[in-house]
Amino acid sequence: MLKRPIIMDVDTGVDDTLALLLVAGSDKLDLKAITTVFGNSSVEDTTKNTLKICELLKLDVPVAAGAYRPVIDPPIDYSVAPMVDIHGRDGLGNVGNRLPEPVKTVVDMPAVDLMAKAIRESEEKVTIVATAPLTNIATFIMAYPELRSKVECIALMGGAAFGGNMGFSVEANIGHDPDAAKIVFMSDIPKYMFSLDATMGCFITDDERQAIADNGGETGVWLKDCMQQYSDIYKALGGLPGAVLHDSLPVAWLLDESVVEFTHCYVDVELKGVKTRGCTVTDLANYTGKAPNTYVSMKADREKLINMHIEAVKKFK
Amino acid sequence: MLKRPIIMDVDTGVDDTLALLLVAGSDKLDLKAITTVFGNSSVEDTTKNTLKICELLKLDVPVAAGAYRPVIDPPIDYSVAPMVDIHGRDGLGNVGNRLPEPVKTVVDMPAVDLMAKAIRESEEKVTIVATAPLTNIATFIMAYPELRSKVECIALMGGAAFGGNMGFSVEANIGHDPDAAKIVFMSDIPKYMFSLDATMGCFITDDERQAIADNGGETGVWLKDCMQQYSDIYKALGGLPGAVLHDSLPVAWLLDESVVEFTHCYVDVELKGVKTRGCTVTDLANYTGKAPNTYVSMKADREKLINMHIEAVKKFK
Amino acid sequence: MLKRPIIMDVDTGVDDTLALLLVAGSDKLDLKAITTVFGNSSVEDTTKNTLKICELLKLDVPVAAGAYRPVIDPPIDYSVAPMVDIHGRDGLGNVGNRLPEPVKTVVDMPAVDLMAKAIRESEEKVTIVATAPLTNIATFIMAYPELRSKVECIALMGGAAFGGNMGFSVEANIGHDPDAAKIVFMSDIPKYMFSLDATMGCFITDDERQAIADNGGETGVWLKDCMQQYSDIYKALGGLPGAVLHDSLPVAWLLDESVVEFTHCYVDVELKGVKTRGCTVTDLANYTGKAPNTYVSMKADREKLINMHIEAVKKFK
Amino acid sequence: MLKRPIIMDVDTGVDDTLALLLVAGSDKLDLKAITTVFGNSSVEDTTKNTLKICELLKLDVPVAAGAYRPVIDPPIDYSVAPMVDIHGRDGLGNVGNRLPEPVKTVVDMPAVDLMAKAIRESEEKVTIVATAPLTNIATFIMAYPELRSKVECIALMGGAAFGGNMGFSVEANIGHDPDAAKIVFMSDIPKYMFSLDATMGCFITDDERQAIADNGGETGVWLKDCMQQYSDIYKALGGLPGAVLHDSLPVAWLLDESVVEFTHCYVDVELKGVKTRGCTVTDLANYTGKAPNTYVSMKADREKLINMHIEAVKKFK
Repeated sequence: MLKRPIIMDVDTGVDDTLALLLVAGSDKLDLKAITTVFGNSSVEDTTKNTLKICELLKLDVPVAAGAYRPVIDPPIDYSVAPMVDIHGRDGLGNVGNRLPEPVKTVVDMPAVDLMAKAIRESEEKVTIVATAPLTNIATFIMAYPELRSKVECIALMGGAAFGGNMGFSVEANIGHDPDAAKIVFMSDIPKYMFSLDATMGCFITDDERQAIADNGGETGVWLKDCMQQYSDIYKALGGLPGAVLHDSLPVAWLLDESVVEFTHCYVDVELKGVKTRGCTVTDLANYTGKAPNTYVSMKADREKLINMHIEAVKKFK
Repeated sequence: MLKRPIIMDVDTGVDDTLALLLVAGSDKLDLKAITTVFGNSSVEDTTKNTLKICELLKLDVPVAAGAYRPVIDPPIDYSVAPMVDIHGRDGLGNVGNRLPEPVKTVVDMPAVDLMAKAIRESEEKVTIVATAPLTNIATFIMAYPELRSKVECIALMGGAAFGGNMGFSVEANIGHDPDAAKIVFMSDIPKYMFSLDATMGCFITDDERQAIADNGGETGVWLKDCMQQYSDIYKALGGLPGAVLHDSLPVAWLLDESVVEFTHCYVDVELKGVKTRGCTVTDLANYTGKAPNTYVSMKADREKLINMHIEAVKKFK
Repeated sequence: MLKRPIIMDVDTGVDDTLALLLVAGSDKLDLKAITTVFGNSSVEDTTKNTLKICELLKLDVPVAAGAYRPVIDPPIDYSVAPMVDIHGRDGLGNVGNRLPEPVKTVVDMPAVDLMAKAIRESEEKVTIVATAPLTNIATFIMAYPELRSKVECIALMGGAAFGGNMGFSVEANIGHDPDAAKIVFMSDIPKYMFSLDATMGCFITDDERQAIADNGGETGVWLKDCMQQYSDIYKALGGLPGAVLHDSLPVAWLLDESVVEFTHCYVDVELKGVKTRGCTVTDLANYTGKAPNTYVSMKADREKLINMHIEAVKKFK
Repeated sequence: MLKRPIIMDVDTGVDDTLALLLVAGSDKLDLKAITTVFGNSSVEDTTKNTLKICELLKLDVPVAAGAYRPVIDPPIDYSVAPMVDIHGRDGLGNVGNRLPEPVKTVVDMPAVDLMAKAIRESEEKVTIVATAPLTNIATFIMAYPELRSKVECIALMGGAAFGGNMGFSVEANIGHDPDAAKIVFMSDIPKYMFSLDATMGCFITDDERQAIADNGGETGVWLKDCMQQYSDIYKALGGLPGAVLHDSLPVAWLLDESVVEFTHCYVDVELKGVKTRGCTVTDLANYTGKAPNTYVSMKADREKLINMHIEAVKKFK
């Protein structure tokens, strides 16, 4: 069977880590490259974390570092950014130091060059999975317009038709670089938006976290601990039974389409609003009269999603 | 018992008519004045309709005509505006011509002057009920800042925390004059926002419409027919069992507080968004950290609301 | 000879005072009313100053207080506003306390009511001279749309095709209430914009200030002193030979059209720019293709303007 | 003597052609590469034109094609764009067909890759001269943040402190991609802005055009004819004695600094204005209080500039 070629664009991050677990645990995906970007932490930290997680999960693929800042908005000051309270000081739930310093290093080219190289060299069209601000992907679209036709689709965690986790219908991956998101949504590449509307249902309970520890050997134990602070804050602030595994949903969908339900509609990103910059204007009622440009996730099968993690981690027992 | 003094600011309109029925049918309210504004139709038409409805419902109060256009946006061209499909060519479901030409005339002063006069002359603080774009009320706030303290509250039909009927979280009364709405929401007058979140549940079934006809003599029959086209379009486009009586909810609340549930939060109006102008940014999760400034209706008791109409119309049997 | 009926809308203010001197010194104008607004100081201060100046200059006309804040922008905090450095702590160059407390009081109606009354009662069309933020006039336009046709024109000090004194092409009277300015510029009332393009040339030298003192008795001496700090700051920061009498230019034009040259073009007010809110977009090259809506002052005859003040003050010798 | 290494980013274009003449005629510059972008015509046309001009002027350097559209604004429809009236249907004054089809071809990499390669391989820092929308340069900054320190400066033709040729203080190179311009102006690379404030004075008279023909052999004759329509339209619409050679000014400055006078101030690009998008907000009076980030050309030595062209063309006699 032909494996589906993918590139992961990540800001590792606790839930990026779990998304990478799904990639590592499957034999259906042909991971060509990983690119990193600022987001949950600085790009220096997300890159270091990604290298560590690659070694932990035995993902032997090239990693390249990408954007350190949004397209137009000023760089985030991570010394005061609230993401630390969610993903930990190190972006890995404050247990990153229990992993060895990585031997693996980044390749000597920027993220967009690695993306372009992987896509050019692939015989099949490549799927880009984005679990981070869309800065690298926007830059790729701008720099290599002729390669758009080699991209199967962009499966991105981000956006919110309702709700939001950074503002009114503003989800953090979009809100941290609205201009990049606009560039992606306006492109003609097929788009699947794994939005808060579905991901907010994808929490993992304490028992399920324990199951990851029980089924994954040392790796499983570390993953369970990595989710601890993240889980605590979702319980405390979100009133949920546990951590929400946003970033896993697009990977899970690549492995089993039945894990999520979509609606097909027109999505635009508000850039100019004072109260609504970064809002994903999801035109469910078609007020704009525009043709659909995005598949928007409206509902996910939580149990199926979590079980996929428990299955995946068994590889590391 | 002291009656509660109110002013109605309307763009009559099918559902404004039903709101006025609730006022006319009750002995709890002391209606001081009615002011009219563009909205469902031109201010010429809403004024004429209001005069007709006053005679139909025996509301013997002064009526004054107000704004013909929004504060800043260009005037609406009613020859092409889609409201005609909802409220009829005459704004009264195309049965306005079955009512006699009104003998009653408007008072010789603009809407804001009548508002100011009624408020100055009232011993008690006055409640303003708005079932229309907020242009008159914004103008009143600007022209008579010292009278703000004599306003008990503004009970306005408008806005949407979710959904919208004109755009993404854009409800028509707000969307037809976002700047006026901003002026109202930024004012220090207490505000109750009867938003689509609650009003969309307030439909009236065919049987209930028939009950209005059966219980209200000729007036009831006319009211039933007045709602016919309005009901048809809600069934056709909205997939609902009948017409939605948005404008009745704030009046119903004045008569029986139990008809609606509120949440207290900060509401702002987006003025600058390209995709989101007129969006009522309802900060349920308190992303802004700002103190609540509005009671937002989240749920209404539909049956109770509809029954209030059936009781009210009995006065006209 | 028929006197031209005018209303003055002011935020007195040093240069408003000099504009009122021109009114008081002429027999060509029929001053119907004065209305006050926030701007150079709070509306409390500008009103008190206006009453004092009316007594000083024997202007026996009704005065009414108007807006204390802009239409949409938040109120100005005058405890930190930089206007104090220009117009003095009291708005009268710190010599307001040398004038007696006014016996005169404001009429018991808000500014827009007095405007409406004066305009209704006038047989002739009335010219509104505005030397302040346009908040009152915008409110008047909104509250009394039917009286627009009784306004001969609005002669307003404000705006800048080039330059600006608050930001890039942002002049203070516009910048302190851009929304009000927009309402005025979008109205169909004829508009004459006495912009910085012309007024910045209207400085008064030390010798000319002395001539005012020499020709105007005690009144002249006080006026000279009133301009002292204002003159000092224009010399220090503006590199000019003396104070700039912006507000006098529209009145001077009513007395002698030859004092200023206009170009007729389309002017709009930018509301949504982040760097350009309040910019008077003066379309000299007609990029917009829109019909002219404003006469924009491009050049003034400084000496003629200043001499008009020296002549006017002789009345008070 | 060390030659100054430069990259030319162009949308050839009549005046780009004249700028390339200055490069070709000098021995002071080490032209590393030319990159093309949409602007005066589509990127297909500007690329073809650039190849033709390289052969005409014997510029033996790699050429790469870049952006076909702005970062966020929709692509320009060149079938209706007004630039055709200025630069001709072919972008070369309708005489491009008198040049042979180019033998030279573009290199097999996108513009930003060629930029990055040339900059990496250069021992010295490289100056980027931009005579076109800044899309390629913005993309380069985003894709290769670590190479910013190898850029000596960006010398860009564009912007307007006063005036504008596309809107109020909107110059076409900025107005055709305001977001790209914002990215460039916000970057920490030193910037020299050759704005309309200086370039509008850089017209070439008929006699001077003739001198180019007389001194440049067949090449000179072709260049004269290439400027014919461009000259005609500047005379007709601009009331100038001839065509304005905007794009030559940054190159001329590299050859002789005395050709232009700068002021050092803070420049920002307005993105959100409705009437002012693309406006270069040039803070000559330092309203913002921000440190200068750009050298803005305020005045050029026209005769010196034109004479440099006449000298340059002699090489082709």
